[in-house]
Amino acid sequence: MSVTAASGFEAAGVEAGLKNSGGLDLALVVNRGPLQAAAAVFTSNRAKANPILWSQQVIADGTVSAVVLNSGGANCFTGSQGFQTTHATAEQVAAELSVSAGDVLVCSTGLIGEQLDRDRVLAGVSAAAGALSANGGADASRAIMTTDTRPKTAVVNTGGWTIGGMAKGAGMLAPGLATMLVVITTDAVLEPAELDAALRSATRVSFDRLDSDGCMSTNDHVTLMASGASGIRPEVNEFTESLTELCTNLAMQLMSDAEGASHDITIEVVGAETEEDAVEVGRSVARNNLFKAAVFGNDPNWGRVLSAIGTTAAAFDPYEVDVSMNGVRVCHAGEPDQPRELVDLTPRAVHLAIDLKVGAAAATIFTNDLTHDYVHENSAYSS
Amino acid sequence: MSVTAASGFEAAGVEAGLKNSGGLDLALVVNRGPLQAAAAVFTSNRAKANPILWSQQVIADGTVSAVVLNSGGANCFTGSQGFQTTHATAEQVAAELSVSAGDVLVCSTGLIGEQLDRDRVLAGVSAAAGALSANGGADASRAIMTTDTRPKTAVVNTGGWTIGGMAKGAGMLAPGLATMLVVITTDAVLEPAELDAALRSATRVSFDRLDSDGCMSTNDHVTLMASGASGIRPEVNEFTESLTELCTNLAMQLMSDAEGASHDITIEVVGAETEEDAVEVGRSVARNNLFKAAVFGNDPNWGRVLSAIGTTAAAFDPYEVDVSMNGVRVCHAGEPDQPRELVDLTPRAVHLAIDLKVGAAAATIFTNDLTHDYVHENSAYSS
Repeated sequence: MSVTAASGFEAAGVEAGLKNSGGLDLALVVNRGPLQAAAAVFTSNRAKANPILWSQQVIADGTVSAVVLNSGGANCFTGSQGFQTTHATAEQVAAELSVSAGDVLVCSTGLIGEQLDRDRVLAGVSAAAGALSANGGADASRAIMTTDTRPKTAVVNTGGWTIGGMAKGAGMLAPGLATMLVVITTDAVLEPAELDAALRSATRVSFDRLDSDGCMSTNDHVTLMASGASGIRPEVNEFTESLTELCTNLAMQLMSDAEGASHDITIEVVGAETEEDAVEVGRSVARNNLFKAAVFGNDPNWGRVLSAIGTTAAAFDPYEVDVSMNGVRVCHAGEPDQPRELVDLTPRAVHLAIDLKVGAAAATIFTNDLTHDYVHENSAYSS
Repeated sequence: MSVTAASGFEAAGVEAGLKNSGGLDLALVVNRGPLQAAAAVFTSNRAKANPILWSQQVIADGTVSAVVLNSGGANCFTGSQGFQTTHATAEQVAAELSVSAGDVLVCSTGLIGEQLDRDRVLAGVSAAAGALSANGGADASRAIMTTDTRPKTAVVNTGGWTIGGMAKGAGMLAPGLATMLVVITTDAVLEPAELDAALRSATRVSFDRLDSDGCMSTNDHVTLMASGASGIRPEVNEFTESLTELCTNLAMQLMSDAEGASHDITIEVVGAETEEDAVEVGRSVARNNLFKAAVFGNDPNWGRVLSAIGTTAAAFDPYEVDVSMNGVRVCHAGEPDQPRELVDLTPRAVHLAIDLKVGAAAATIFTNDLTHDYVHENSAYSS
């Protein structure tokens, strides 16, 4: 049910002819109210796509009527012509729905540096507006796929109110920095400021902890919209907890469908002086190609973990660190401990535990291995 | 002729039985004087191998009699037993040559987190001492190879005095930060402080600008030794210029032999506000797996270049930047310029030019593409 699980929302996914591969490629999600409260977070890449530049203005007042998303082109580094395409898209949505263009978020994904076919986008918007339905979440979640092999959706239902979401993203996947598009909807009654605080809290420990390939997108965009249609005003903490659960669920779906990956790697850093240190250490390992290639080869090469930690500014003594892989402590206090041959890396799920032995802070980073299929997909596919 | 091109030096390379693959694996380079001046730079990885910890003490007084180097094991994260192996190795060299162990540098390369076979190392030292010759540079340069497919040597001969060098390194190759071992020798007459200044100046724009796979080693070590045997005292600037030429030559050999690489990529950043900005921009592109995989596939995907630049803190406006690939300007002022189909990426040498349009500073970073062979070599080979 995705973004239409919560009441007050309609969605559609249509084929606008934007993707060379064909198939659904334009999605529309509409908030029918009574509230139209929203919050959004965007990529922190300084090279921002035209739809990001547009949507940053739209979100400023906390009111969003609809989100339109296309695959088949990122509309990034496409100059004023590209910006006008984004603007025209929002205007078309506004005209079809009788809302203000200034309340329409736009998201795009695909190849950077190519113009979108504006006529096809606008015709697609009209088709999507005509196809809107309270069961349209599934089609919408398919229309935003690029190299994704499957749609990603999640729903948290508390009884009184519901949160639903959809996500796309398989490469250029190092949010945190905020390649994914995510739309989350809820029928809870919440103010824009409450939504913003909840969304930032949830994304900080979910999408922002995913670092599949170290490459930050120009188009990342996570939107949360509230319709208030349930009539129920939840405790903000309770809502944030449910939202974090939903975001983590979607983030794990992104990890497990990452381009070419054969292992999902959970890097748990404990004993850090600060959470920032734990994140920096986890991310340094997540971005180490040698470690990632070793995991692909089922090789528990823990020296590569320590060499990655050594590049950080985190508080630690290299000769105090413990490292465990899938439950086997291979390094204790910077020296060889259990034989690396005891580590079984054949399951897809890999757990790497790093104890810095400095403090009580911790963080978990999620990444993937570096595989032949990753190289193949990203050398053969212009995305 | 490598490290024995300059007069006053002897070297040897022997098989000590340290490498599983067999072959030469222990090298010894001896400075016969009359001077024994030296300088060295080391990895800035905070996880430093035992030979680095030892050699940092040795170099403090600027006097070095000999350098002993082994492949077949990095002696890193091997605790006090490992440090004692390094110490015993220096003592063995000292005893064989009748010099002080405090004047013997030790370098190791290979798998992290495994003990070296100390008896084999010591026996190898004795064998190498017995094999020293003024023609031993070639064997020495072979004995330090790990995944290198060929030895790397270079010589600059100015007429009066000579600089010679050898290098190893094919993976975990992102010095600058300082995986390579390099030994450079000269018969020029120079003080340790002059050697140190020249070495730092030369490595800053040669080895430090090489970022093949973004992974900083625990064992990087570049040593420069002067014998003074030519009797000629060069101008320091003139010497530094020749040394930079030699270091750049060796760095280019490292790049062209990088594990699994099919393209050598020169990233020239111009129009930067500062040299630091230019280096940061170049390095961010050099570390972008999506860009590197695209080059492997001969795909001029310049959007991945701009998305990488956008992750830096360098001064620039994404909508002013120009990008050219192999002479074709594919992006002008942040918009598509010449068609990407005009770019021919089939030659091994790729030239990427980035003009930030902010200032007059520039820097060039050298990297490689991300290939199936890189993944294969680093998943199948424990190094």
